[in-house]
Amino acid sequence: MSSLKPTIGVFDSGFGGLTVLRALLPLIPDARYIYLGDTARLPYGSKSHETIARYAVSSAKFLHEQGADLLVIACNTATALAFEDIQRALPIPVIGVVEPGAQAALAAAESTPNQVLVLATTATVQSRAYTQALNALNLEATEKACPLLVPLVEEGWINHPVTDEVLKIYLTEALAQAPATNTLLLGCTHYPLLEPAIRRTLTSMQHPLTIIDAAKATARAVASHLGLPSQSPDLNATGPQCTFYATDSVEKFQFLGSNFLGQAVAKVNLIDLGG
Amino acid sequence: MSSLKPTIGVFDSGFGGLTVLRALLPLIPDARYIYLGDTARLPYGSKSHETIARYAVSSAKFLHEQGADLLVIACNTATALAFEDIQRALPIPVIGVVEPGAQAALAAAESTPNQVLVLATTATVQSRAYTQALNALNLEATEKACPLLVPLVEEGWINHPVTDEVLKIYLTEALAQAPATNTLLLGCTHYPLLEPAIRRTLTSMQHPLTIIDAAKATARAVASHLGLPSQSPDLNATGPQCTFYATDSVEKFQFLGSNFLGQAVAKVNLIDLGG
Repeated sequence: MSSLKPTIGVFDSGFGGLTVLRALLPLIPDARYIYLGDTARLPYGSKSHETIARYAVSSAKFLHEQGADLLVIACNTATALAFEDIQRALPIPVIGVVEPGAQAALAAAESTPNQVLVLATTATVQSRAYTQALNALNLEATEKACPLLVPLVEEGWINHPVTDEVLKIYLTEALAQAPATNTLLLGCTHYPLLEPAIRRTLTSMQHPLTIIDAAKATARAVASHLGLPSQSPDLNATGPQCTFYATDSVEKFQFLGSNFLGQAVAKVNLIDLGG
Repeated sequence: MSSLKPTIGVFDSGFGGLTVLRALLPLIPDARYIYLGDTARLPYGSKSHETIARYAVSSAKFLHEQGADLLVIACNTATALAFEDIQRALPIPVIGVVEPGAQAALAAAESTPNQVLVLATTATVQSRAYTQALNALNLEATEKACPLLVPLVEEGWINHPVTDEVLKIYLTEALAQAPATNTLLLGCTHYPLLEPAIRRTLTSMQHPLTIIDAAKATARAVASHLGLPSQSPDLNATGPQCTFYATDSVEKFQFLGSNFLGQAVAKVNLIDLGG
């Protein structure tokens, strides 16, 4: 890494991308961070390719204008549907969450062939981006759309019998389709908050799986891109400089965002990207 | 009503407003209808006042530009948070769903004082628009935000044990706060699709309530505004002329919309309102 601090732009439709920022902070403490949550236009996961690409490109351009010299698409839906559009629109390196997630699934593979189940939004599943990325690594893939999981997380029901029941329904349907599954990839940045509920549900179903969290894998991909040595996260690092932007209520961003970031979210700036 | 056919603009953030259009069609078959679902920017119910007002005004202006000479805000959140903004922005009469819903609750009142429970989105509840409208009619009001109900309807789980369980949780919390409740007002256009589930849940809780659907009350208010005599709906009317617009995927609008409209949704036109 050059002696100049990199400015890393991190973008998500809402709060979920803060789980990626959370993984980045201890791994690359010597950077500036600019985070944008496009909260006025969320969710992306239920919308069309054209709409998602339009929103994602305008958000990415905003972060570039603010000085980002590396962009992290910390949103599975935007990565799955708009990675190439964003890459074409920006003159800086772009890193998404799909490729690092697929690589982490490969690293976790204990047997060959490995069978990966991806839980994601409807739009991500329809894009088949994860299937393509996993197949390219010779991994078998099944994708399952889980549209109720984001609302359940946002309702705060992360340890709740209703959430366990919904997870059991989704996982039972998916595993009936792919019974040889041994790896579970959380293909939405909201889902790591449900990891305890997912583990509990899989135990009750007597079908344990290796769980891959694309957020941590993405943070490692960013460090690698910057030429940083493979190292343990510096958990004692003093907080790097983070600037937060949102397109809707800054109060809600601060309130909900802290759950995803794992620490208080400092001042949030309201911006208007049109719409 | 004049001999000229009125052109009625009907606006919602998505598909829910089609339940209002569904009530309008047999009641006022002799009208032209233009429906706009602002699907690229939905949901409104979890967003801020400023964002909702901005989206709702631009949507209402579009319908006026298409020739609407009467606007129906077929969305509780947009009515609760942006009724006055829309009224100021348009030179045509504007009818929302809150006032007709409150009037219908009054008409249904069997005892005095009457206690009404309103189920609605977070933004609608925070606006306290229903409480104000009901209090003005000397009705007691409690409001309960139910953020999971729209996602459950959109998942298609309208008769599903998980939905019954979620309804039981929401209704138990609300009725613990207002045990004298005797009337339930469905303050979101998605909720009429859950009416059988709500009745079933209330029966299991041994707490029957009179259920008010603001969609039908709004259709009657529109007929009354147009000076139409109070009459039974003409269920044999040949279909009035309806033109549909959406800001996101027209295929999804046609597919999901038919559940709300109760009949197939004809050709949908994709428009861009920015954002």
